[in-house]
Amino acid sequence: MTLRVGLIGAGIMGADHARILSQQIAGVSLHFICDRDTARARQIADDTGAAHVSDDPLAVINDRQVDAVLIASPDQTHAPLTKACIAAGKPVLCEKPLSQDSAECLDVIAAEVKTGKRLVQIGFMRRFDLGYVDMKKALGNGSIGPALMMHNFHRNVSAPPSFTGQMAITNSAPHEFDIARYVLGEEFESISVFRPKLADPTKVGAPVFMVLTTCGGQIVNVEINNNAAYGYDVRGELVGEKGSVFLRSPVASELNVNLQSVISYPADWRPRFAEAYRLQNAAWLKSIETGKPVGASAWDGYASTLVAEAGVTSLESGSAVRIIPIAKPALY
Amino acid sequence: MTLRVGLIGAGIMGADHARILSQQIAGVSLHFICDRDTARARQIADDTGAAHVSDDPLAVINDRQVDAVLIASPDQTHAPLTKACIAAGKPVLCEKPLSQDSAECLDVIAAEVKTGKRLVQIGFMRRFDLGYVDMKKALGNGSIGPALMMHNFHRNVSAPPSFTGQMAITNSAPHEFDIARYVLGEEFESISVFRPKLADPTKVGAPVFMVLTTCGGQIVNVEINNNAAYGYDVRGELVGEKGSVFLRSPVASELNVNLQSVISYPADWRPRFAEAYRLQNAAWLKSIETGKPVGASAWDGYASTLVAEAGVTSLESGSAVRIIPIAKPALY
Amino acid sequence: MTLRVGLIGAGIMGADHARILSQQIAGVSLHFICDRDTARARQIADDTGAAHVSDDPLAVINDRQVDAVLIASPDQTHAPLTKACIAAGKPVLCEKPLSQDSAECLDVIAAEVKTGKRLVQIGFMRRFDLGYVDMKKALGNGSIGPALMMHNFHRNVSAPPSFTGQMAITNSAPHEFDIARYVLGEEFESISVFRPKLADPTKVGAPVFMVLTTCGGQIVNVEINNNAAYGYDVRGELVGEKGSVFLRSPVASELNVNLQSVISYPADWRPRFAEAYRLQNAAWLKSIETGKPVGASAWDGYASTLVAEAGVTSLESGSAVRIIPIAKPALY
Amino acid sequence: MTLRVGLIGAGIMGADHARILSQQIAGVSLHFICDRDTARARQIADDTGAAHVSDDPLAVINDRQVDAVLIASPDQTHAPLTKACIAAGKPVLCEKPLSQDSAECLDVIAAEVKTGKRLVQIGFMRRFDLGYVDMKKALGNGSIGPALMMHNFHRNVSAPPSFTGQMAITNSAPHEFDIARYVLGEEFESISVFRPKLADPTKVGAPVFMVLTTCGGQIVNVEINNNAAYGYDVRGELVGEKGSVFLRSPVASELNVNLQSVISYPADWRPRFAEAYRLQNAAWLKSIETGKPVGASAWDGYASTLVAEAGVTSLESGSAVRIIPIAKPALY
Repeated sequence: MTLRVGLIGAGIMGADHARILSQQIAGVSLHFICDRDTARARQIADDTGAAHVSDDPLAVINDRQVDAVLIASPDQTHAPLTKACIAAGKPVLCEKPLSQDSAECLDVIAAEVKTGKRLVQIGFMRRFDLGYVDMKKALGNGSIGPALMMHNFHRNVSAPPSFTGQMAITNSAPHEFDIARYVLGEEFESISVFRPKLADPTKVGAPVFMVLTTCGGQIVNVEINNNAAYGYDVRGELVGEKGSVFLRSPVASELNVNLQSVISYPADWRPRFAEAYRLQNAAWLKSIETGKPVGASAWDGYASTLVAEAGVTSLESGSAVRIIPIAKPALY
Repeated sequence: MTLRVGLIGAGIMGADHARILSQQIAGVSLHFICDRDTARARQIADDTGAAHVSDDPLAVINDRQVDAVLIASPDQTHAPLTKACIAAGKPVLCEKPLSQDSAECLDVIAAEVKTGKRLVQIGFMRRFDLGYVDMKKALGNGSIGPALMMHNFHRNVSAPPSFTGQMAITNSAPHEFDIARYVLGEEFESISVFRPKLADPTKVGAPVFMVLTTCGGQIVNVEINNNAAYGYDVRGELVGEKGSVFLRSPVASELNVNLQSVISYPADWRPRFAEAYRLQNAAWLKSIETGKPVGASAWDGYASTLVAEAGVTSLESGSAVRIIPIAKPALY
Repeated sequence: MTLRVGLIGAGIMGADHARILSQQIAGVSLHFICDRDTARARQIADDTGAAHVSDDPLAVINDRQVDAVLIASPDQTHAPLTKACIAAGKPVLCEKPLSQDSAECLDVIAAEVKTGKRLVQIGFMRRFDLGYVDMKKALGNGSIGPALMMHNFHRNVSAPPSFTGQMAITNSAPHEFDIARYVLGEEFESISVFRPKLADPTKVGAPVFMVLTTCGGQIVNVEINNNAAYGYDVRGELVGEKGSVFLRSPVASELNVNLQSVISYPADWRPRFAEAYRLQNAAWLKSIETGKPVGASAWDGYASTLVAEAGVTSLESGSAVRIIPIAKPALY
Repeated sequence: MTLRVGLIGAGIMGADHARILSQQIAGVSLHFICDRDTARARQIADDTGAAHVSDDPLAVINDRQVDAVLIASPDQTHAPLTKACIAAGKPVLCEKPLSQDSAECLDVIAAEVKTGKRLVQIGFMRRFDLGYVDMKKALGNGSIGPALMMHNFHRNVSAPPSFTGQMAITNSAPHEFDIARYVLGEEFESISVFRPKLADPTKVGAPVFMVLTTCGGQIVNVEINNNAAYGYDVRGELVGEKGSVFLRSPVASELNVNLQSVISYPADWRPRFAEAYRLQNAAWLKSIETGKPVGASAWDGYASTLVAEAGVTSLESGSAVRIIPIAKPALY
């Protein structure tokens, strides 16, 4: 059986998903590439052998030939389109964030709960990265003892000029919030945000450094550094009472020249998480087949947005902010 | 367009190929799983959604529904089945070695040359490993200067009791011979084989250490250690006049416990080269589509077998043995 | 010229200093080993060829044969003995902390200022560790741009049962406070202390996680984990606007066995910082000869104690605490 | 008790030894710096506080104030000066090689044997390197099983134009021959030398690649690459039946800039083996005190020279050459 997927959004992430679905996973056909910019959609479709293009996401979602939907369109469209998928009764893999507004996340949750069925997966692909999988396993099998702390560092080469102020918290950090929640199996209780000053005070784009506490008493810190300059680099360590687990990034080779041993950093997240995206998308399609949801749920989308909102408040107030979620519906 | 593949051989490698083709590559359908042991073939077919099973490789090769053939059956069947594919005009990916007998490799080459068309790819998947790709690139772009030496180390946890004497040279080493030929872009001229003694002289399975010279004057050494005990571990270094490139193995995480920082080794080759197999098989299928051959050819299969034969002679004689290939046909 | 040193304190650190002075540095003679426990002092003297033993630190300090004093006695004696050295006009290397009470540090500073001469060096040996030296150099030469953040992790295998509560801040953290001040060339402005919960709430010895801001606007975090179990491990990273520098620990070899690649951790700080202690002590003796002070001063001792005091307040209050030093005397 | 050392030779190695003896070791005084170039000797003496300078090595050796001699003069003087020390009954640490002529080594051995007392230590400082110490320990305690192979790689940035042909074997390789003999506890039986071609055949200085067999049946390979360009880099691996041990080089920090993670290589051997030299020299002085010889003996000097001679023969003949030592005198 071949699943026909409608892909909404043909930007960088959309193009990547099109490539993954068309090349690295069996049993799936790209039925639609949908983008406002139909020329762009057409190009991706030509590259990947997708059957159709469209500029109307709702038409794609509701097309009877479309079995499942992958949303990679701009952030503000995620929630409404996900709700449209729920309304159509179709499984959907929605890129993070579900919404930058926790209330809107709750709308999606309410809609999904009403159907009584899990339809939504959020694109927190790190849950499929083998390093985080190892971390979670080490915690589960007791080899590092009970968890105490988790240290997380996220660095991009550079952010667009528009990427300022609180966007480090609302756009980049949710990956870290989600993976820490997932690895630890805990919800967050509070967040304190710190921000260093750039040498040139007229510039924007300084990192944020966050310290979170979990309901289980763990401390989690998150550095988001979107202008780290030196490379795309994600690091993490889970510290337990008996030991710790470090994340390692994929390295294929080492170059020795000019009195230096050099390992290259990727310029963006794609080489670093290529395998995680592939495994995530394959697991999503498999979960549609088996009916057993995997990966991050709409609830997880809500939880990380709620943390980000508290983070923004903390950034503004300079104090720790408490995170108070609604009661988790039984569906999740 | 979906390519229908007939997979011949449902052993460990065959099962792996079935999994790769059925899960990790788009645009391909497993049309046949063929094995003498039809129960085994049936199980793989059930696991991977293959359409049919068979115990008759020639019937599979000649089936009109089969577009391409992947041979992963026992070594001695590789050459005759590859010839059957050539006779049927069908593209074939044949696991290494093409044959352990260079004369038989020449038979295959003669048959392929007669068709005037490249149909055969040999499963030297390391050519698709990102580390070796980096090596070749560093040599090509001049960053390490002209090549001088290549150091290669191949280690398995343990070999079956049957895996003794010269099999390290004839079965394991061809991967090293091929990748060195490929990275350096050179043919080998001579080989000298050395073998350490095991502490218990009644045991078999000691490593072999080989030193090869290329026609271009490089020195290549190859350690094959099939009972290395500590893990599956492949290492390589290409040394040029201005620098060197090291291979790195994939590592997802690092565990700190009991006064130790621990990186796990895989127990066999599959995790180490999972990505290389996936990329090789995808490139093979793509090459059928485009008509542009990629990867190792029948000639490459012959070349590495010829080196292995000289290696066996050197192991017996204790002296360096010259390697004298036939003239390379224009097809390659 | 041979400097005659009086060593006060023959505990673990004292014994180490005796070994360093008697074996790894030229031009120095151990004139006295002084300890309440004269048997212990005698044993160290025998091991290291020290001339005399004593149980009276003041007699040692004031002995006319003693050119310089190294204080490695219990923490509460540091300040009074350092003052005695100042009174005697003798150069002194005092193990950290100068005092756990910043007011007492100010007493020492006042005494030294009165002499108009730098006599006191504090044993913050990390300033001589080659990794931190590299960090400071990378910041100084601009290769990583202006400093933004510094991440510091200090882990011991286990702390004695008495080592609880705030001692992680007052005893271990000063090394981190000092090295961050030194590398960044900045004073601290505030500190916020977080503490995870142990799984067994009746146990003591949980780590502390601190976030500090500097007057220059940098963020510094410090983890002190005295019961880290897995090994003695100190890590650090300095993050600038253009790149970062990581500390690396000394590693002599790597063991491959049982499907693992293993690097050993030391059980305590001595192997990790052996070279830094040697370099520190040699630099101290050299500075006596040249009259040019090196290393951490009494002011540095005060500064890190002041931060620790603020840290203890923050631990108790759960809020950020501002750090307000006195004006720095011109002597420093 | 202070040992008065006469240092003969004030070149690069001599200056280093003067620095080590005058700064990093207690209980020793530099009594003489001796060099043909007395201005040079004077400068080193001034830098290190040595008491006297001389241009007459024999006068230094025979000076009654000199307790022990360190020879770091040109290679061809090593044997005669060592014999003079033996004649004077004085302990001597002689830089490697004892002689490049095995017959001359035997002369020294005969002279030392006649005294019935071990006086000579050869400067094979790697025996004191912590990585090789770990290797030997892992072999001794059985953790890697019986030894099978040892892989050794020695790389310099560049060799002087005069450093050509067989000098890689006679000058650099003895360090490798000695450390392999020492770690394995075996003598060598044969050597086969291979040499790659440089791209420019008019240039000299190509590496040599040697394969040696031991009397115990192990295979040892040694790459000497004196024009490796990229850095000073020594690597080694000991492979046993149950595992392996890798040497690691000292690394203090890691720099992340420009899409690269960079570890610096030293430009020459001194930073790499600084600690080994310090430990060697301290152990030598200690051995004079205790009367228990440590480190490499004159016999070890002879053994590695004998291997180098066989290596030169193999380089010329292109064949394996057998190594036949005299019977080892009981003194060693």
